[in-house]
Amino acid sequence: MLNIATANLAMAVSLAGGLGFIAGGYDLSHLEKELVDARRLNNEDAFGASYRQLNPPQEPSVLPVGVGFLNWGASLKAALPLIKTYRPCAIWLFAPKTGADDLLPWVQRIRSESPYNIKIWVQLCCVADAMECVQKLQPDVLVVQGCDAGGHGYARSASIITLLPEILDQLDLSRPQKLQRPSIVAAGGIVDGRGVAAAVTLGADGCAMGTRFLASPEAQISKGYQKEILRASDGGVSTVRSTVYDKVRGIYGWPGRFDGRGLINRSYEDILNKVVTEDENRRLYEREKSKGDHGWGPQGRMTTYAGTGVGLIREVLPAGQIVTNIRQEAMKRLQKPFFAAKL
Amino acid sequence: MLNIATANLAMAVSLAGGLGFIAGGYDLSHLEKELVDARRLNNEDAFGASYRQLNPPQEPSVLPVGVGFLNWGASLKAALPLIKTYRPCAIWLFAPKTGADDLLPWVQRIRSESPYNIKIWVQLCCVADAMECVQKLQPDVLVVQGCDAGGHGYARSASIITLLPEILDQLDLSRPQKLQRPSIVAAGGIVDGRGVAAAVTLGADGCAMGTRFLASPEAQISKGYQKEILRASDGGVSTVRSTVYDKVRGIYGWPGRFDGRGLINRSYEDILNKVVTEDENRRLYEREKSKGDHGWGPQGRMTTYAGTGVGLIREVLPAGQIVTNIRQEAMKRLQKPFFAAKL
Repeated sequence: MLNIATANLAMAVSLAGGLGFIAGGYDLSHLEKELVDARRLNNEDAFGASYRQLNPPQEPSVLPVGVGFLNWGASLKAALPLIKTYRPCAIWLFAPKTGADDLLPWVQRIRSESPYNIKIWVQLCCVADAMECVQKLQPDVLVVQGCDAGGHGYARSASIITLLPEILDQLDLSRPQKLQRPSIVAAGGIVDGRGVAAAVTLGADGCAMGTRFLASPEAQISKGYQKEILRASDGGVSTVRSTVYDKVRGIYGWPGRFDGRGLINRSYEDILNKVVTEDENRRLYEREKSKGDHGWGPQGRMTTYAGTGVGLIREVLPAGQIVTNIRQEAMKRLQKPFFAAKL
Repeated sequence: MLNIATANLAMAVSLAGGLGFIAGGYDLSHLEKELVDARRLNNEDAFGASYRQLNPPQEPSVLPVGVGFLNWGASLKAALPLIKTYRPCAIWLFAPKTGADDLLPWVQRIRSESPYNIKIWVQLCCVADAMECVQKLQPDVLVVQGCDAGGHGYARSASIITLLPEILDQLDLSRPQKLQRPSIVAAGGIVDGRGVAAAVTLGADGCAMGTRFLASPEAQISKGYQKEILRASDGGVSTVRSTVYDKVRGIYGWPGRFDGRGLINRSYEDILNKVVTEDENRRLYEREKSKGDHGWGPQGRMTTYAGTGVGLIREVLPAGQIVTNIRQEAMKRLQKPFFAAKL
């Protein structure tokens, strides 16, 4: 969640026992500022501070947050010194220009040049990419993204209902090749404890959430956007996968198989109904920015990326509270006895 | 599964403790033949026959299978005498031209003119339709269809991961209106016990499966089609939602919001790449029929509807065995202890 998942949100998630990620994005222009913030927040954390006073670290401490990169645009040369200086505990790679081979220098250099146990997460949207990634990169974590996810993913994709089991089965079949099985994190459509419990039932080791945190005070998000997240319902029909929302913002770098899921607004409708050209649509988008929070909504033009679970989000909650609530809900549901009679 | 889900398949599912449905479709041209077959199979069933000998029925018996209708085309006038004569235990309504109002005469007349406890199932693809349907029709069963499903559904839709919880929440919110909560059956992407367990974890009372039964000897399916179901993998990228597969077959009745998910083949690729007109595409499809089983596959043109779970289907199994295996796998997974430590 570029420009939204800042150090503030990531640290709040991590302090609640989750693992927060800072969105580094494709140009990394704001990344150092965020890493400075994360370091400050980590130093300010009361528990961490008193612990460190009692146990002065022998070496610079590792930040309890990760950093996500959009690899079709991000520069390894720019990323590497930041990783070495600020020591995020994990790196999340996504959307290389061509395939896993593009990520190989990232994985090799990050692993060899970070003198601590940094974890490599790689996100993908189909079985073939998952297998290629495991074979070539041996990531620590495979983030399996289903079609319900907000923002970017494959234009054609399955939900985690089928994608997760098929990847798990293929990983099992590849075991004779002695590949280490990465941890599997499910992403796409998970916004509450039921989603987490379902993903775990399907075989996931954990879950990634984006859209749910848009409705947290720690997200760096305009009120207009956040209001839409609370208002919208029926995400399967109120959102759409499209490249329109990249085009209006002049973003042309995403590889061909990707588009992004967002709430339907005028930017999409006007192109669909052919009442504007792409150039006009972009100009109208630029003009819309002056409307502030009124630029969002079905009649607005501001891009409102959201997953199909948007209708399950009904209140703004502190990010830490979201983590705690969802963990409790999921555990309650997983421990609920199911009786044979039900089936 | 029109022309595939015959009496033979439906009875095999029901005899294994599931509930099989005969596809009546939109023109009902084959329905009476199938109902005659179902009655014969039911009379031949050894357990049923000996039971009936000991307990001669007071009135014509109810068939242990249901009938599905595509309501944008099916005629109530044609359906009603068949229902009254053959007494299927359930009716499945789907895809009315405009909305739940179209289904009201079906529900009212079937309920009033079937002098037995016939169950009304209604399938839908979004939250708004689900709520309208429950308010106007009070169905016995709501079939909640997610985007992973093979064949027809809404072109824009969520998977059951988000759709099911949102519908359940909205039904809970509507309780003050004293609406009876229908049973909830999840559909779309469920092909094994993991899918069933996940759907139950999300709150479903049961699951509907289509694609999985394409790989059963009871399905009335050409070998070419069945071979593709076993061959295909990575259903999120190897299938596509499109209206192309209706157009090549000259089917124009589906309401505007619908399309169908099928394995990608030349019919789709050639239209996508603009190398044929729609008319040429249809002619090429007609010609492809002469190739028999060789007309299927990525380079073929025969329509191959399948859900995103197609990659999880690796063997042809008797339909009854599929029901039994999946029930056992699901129960095993639901009874597996999850430890707090895992989360």
